[in-house]
Amino acid sequence: MTSDLLARRARVMGPNVPTFYDTPVHLVRGEGVWLWDADGRKYLDCYNNVAHVGHCHPHVVEAIARQAAVLNTHTRYLHETILDYSERLTATLSHDLDQMIMVCTGSEANDIALRMAQAVTGKTGIIATDNTYHGNTLATSQLSTRRPPIGGYPAHVRLVPAPDSVRPVGGTIEGQAQAFAEHIARAIAELEAEGCGFSGFMLCPSFANEGFPRLDPGFLDPAVEVIRKAGGLVLCDEVQPGFGRIGETFWGHDWMGFAPDVVTVGKPMANGHPVAAVIARPDVMAAFRTAFGYFNTFGGNPVSCAAAMATLDVIERESLQDNARAVGAYALDRLHRISHPLKAEARGTGLFFGIEFTHDDGSPATEFTREVVEYMRENGVLMNRIGREMNTLKMRPPLPFSKENADLAIDTLEAALQEVPYG
Amino acid sequence: MTSDLLARRARVMGPNVPTFYDTPVHLVRGEGVWLWDADGRKYLDCYNNVAHVGHCHPHVVEAIARQAAVLNTHTRYLHETILDYSERLTATLSHDLDQMIMVCTGSEANDIALRMAQAVTGKTGIIATDNTYHGNTLATSQLSTRRPPIGGYPAHVRLVPAPDSVRPVGGTIEGQAQAFAEHIARAIAELEAEGCGFSGFMLCPSFANEGFPRLDPGFLDPAVEVIRKAGGLVLCDEVQPGFGRIGETFWGHDWMGFAPDVVTVGKPMANGHPVAAVIARPDVMAAFRTAFGYFNTFGGNPVSCAAAMATLDVIERESLQDNARAVGAYALDRLHRISHPLKAEARGTGLFFGIEFTHDDGSPATEFTREVVEYMRENGVLMNRIGREMNTLKMRPPLPFSKENADLAIDTLEAALQEVPYG
Repeated sequence: MTSDLLARRARVMGPNVPTFYDTPVHLVRGEGVWLWDADGRKYLDCYNNVAHVGHCHPHVVEAIARQAAVLNTHTRYLHETILDYSERLTATLSHDLDQMIMVCTGSEANDIALRMAQAVTGKTGIIATDNTYHGNTLATSQLSTRRPPIGGYPAHVRLVPAPDSVRPVGGTIEGQAQAFAEHIARAIAELEAEGCGFSGFMLCPSFANEGFPRLDPGFLDPAVEVIRKAGGLVLCDEVQPGFGRIGETFWGHDWMGFAPDVVTVGKPMANGHPVAAVIARPDVMAAFRTAFGYFNTFGGNPVSCAAAMATLDVIERESLQDNARAVGAYALDRLHRISHPLKAEARGTGLFFGIEFTHDDGSPATEFTREVVEYMRENGVLMNRIGREMNTLKMRPPLPFSKENADLAIDTLEAALQEVPYG
Repeated sequence: MTSDLLARRARVMGPNVPTFYDTPVHLVRGEGVWLWDADGRKYLDCYNNVAHVGHCHPHVVEAIARQAAVLNTHTRYLHETILDYSERLTATLSHDLDQMIMVCTGSEANDIALRMAQAVTGKTGIIATDNTYHGNTLATSQLSTRRPPIGGYPAHVRLVPAPDSVRPVGGTIEGQAQAFAEHIARAIAELEAEGCGFSGFMLCPSFANEGFPRLDPGFLDPAVEVIRKAGGLVLCDEVQPGFGRIGETFWGHDWMGFAPDVVTVGKPMANGHPVAAVIARPDVMAAFRTAFGYFNTFGGNPVSCAAAMATLDVIERESLQDNARAVGAYALDRLHRISHPLKAEARGTGLFFGIEFTHDDGSPATEFTREVVEYMRENGVLMNRIGREMNTLKMRPPLPFSKENADLAIDTLEAALQEVPYG
């Protein structure tokens, strides 16, 4: 019983533990893009970017089971798996992003990235957007507005207005890239005046938590120029867009067309096994490794590497990046053709797409969007919402998502838009 | 080839990546207390506390493989495994330590524990010993001397002299508990003068990284009294002693006889699967969960919980805590009977024991201890060293370690003590 599970959760996990939906789903099984609840009800998963190559993909499960039965230990001993995997993953990156540290979570990866910027520059000042999330450690929470840090934001953190394609920074779409860069320049000046100096800017190249605004390639060029001129590092959090999701390119920064100094990866990397990594240029890695004797007991163990390697295998063998591009374009086309009084914008790249809803006066249709999400769940389609006011429907399914899956999701969405009142 | 692997590591992982031994061991297989290298050479593992119930224990491997094939997703959906496991683990703890957060690494757990103290007290000042390690995140590295933080120690951190059974704090074994507490009281006064106030003290109840000094139960009573009187929390890092290793009790703090406000667990929890947790009283948990909306994508997923549950099964079914007590006592008795000019002290509790070596003048025999460790490795026994000057031999084997295993390890050690020059 769901109510029993919620009572047990409250008893053993405490209050304020996040769940999805008014009545959280009690899952028991997953396969491909499908999930089943305890009553045998089947759901189309349009939201889980962790089960990147599909829930319980047999190739990944077998790789985990095989390696777990042979050896699982840490990197103070030598083992090929971490080398094989690191060589293969760094080969997908340009910009001399040739070295990596394997860790267990995206939060750990971003926590390291912040210190890489610190080690290279000798400064601590750091900038992020004002509508983002980069992790749950103490340090990463300090630049996350979606889960604000305990004790407030410290002096070395500055948050700049997030890009937005409905209400652009600076007032116009044309001027947004420049306005965004100017906010960063002001923040840098403030950090320097504060005395902590400027170490870098952390961003998701798809601005996924900001509501994945529609931005053209090159949007970040003025910002990157400002950051480089001030001697800071560009820390690129690819935890959501990475590994082929956006279709056109394997990495979000390649689509945007800029060169990061550090890339962090996480969630989809090993299809649910706790694996993440920080990838950097050799000079950045050397500065960090020399300044701090980093070691992670579980990071890069043979089982984690086998899981990550098998995930890459599946992405390649099943041409999942191509599928993300093709199905994403198909789905976005259908979303564009939806007509609804509250629809402000349909947008997306690859298998990361959605619709923003606003009222006539331009105010966010937060409650309407919430009700659409609940309707979808009640009708067997799991998706969610994002954006400053949580008024953007967000779909981010496992990559083996087919046109038929997209049709089911969008047919259900069209029914929701008919049924959910918006008065 | 080992040299090829080292070259590949340098190329893809960067400089200053920690390894064990002059020539690191290239492992390919593990089973129980045994490890095999690429040349088919067999080693007795006397050091790995991650493979807690034995390398590749089939019960744990099967649990991982079974659950990975069925479902692996996050805790925003409901699933029984995290509840079953949390209820079972918290039942092993007293002091109202009834609620927990599952994460992926001990570092993540300690990073949360620090913020629990902050949430409860509204202060940031934190104390640890001056010879310890509590994690690799930015926040936990700030109270770790074994891997000092980038940028030095911040104003809200104070490090007090670590307990020592050969060179006791305050000069005498009898006065050490009181002297230790007085150092903490002084540190609290400094933090209050600094303006950050006092939030808590983080410690390992076995002082494992400090060199696991011989201390009697009750040693921490004066310190805990000082901490409580000042309104701070006792944050107990059980990452090394926990889960039955010390034999007499399941937890290190129960052996020491004090009541922590927060307990963190990690390495051995799931026999190598990346699982860790923070366990706290409901009032402490509520303060943290209310102040910060914590969520961990991989933490507490069904596969991690299955691995952790299976590890607890094996500890119980194979009576591994009893084994740790019996074999630990047997091994320590043999260590006590070893006679060597540099032997300062043999000590330990359960399957966590070793010998400290010093020269005639009392100075640490660091190089001698290093050579003993290398001799052991060359002769098929993996162990290591710890302590302020790395002059204490440290043995911390998987728990299915038998008397025959102890005899092999100590016979080899006796040969090492004959062979390694100490002039």
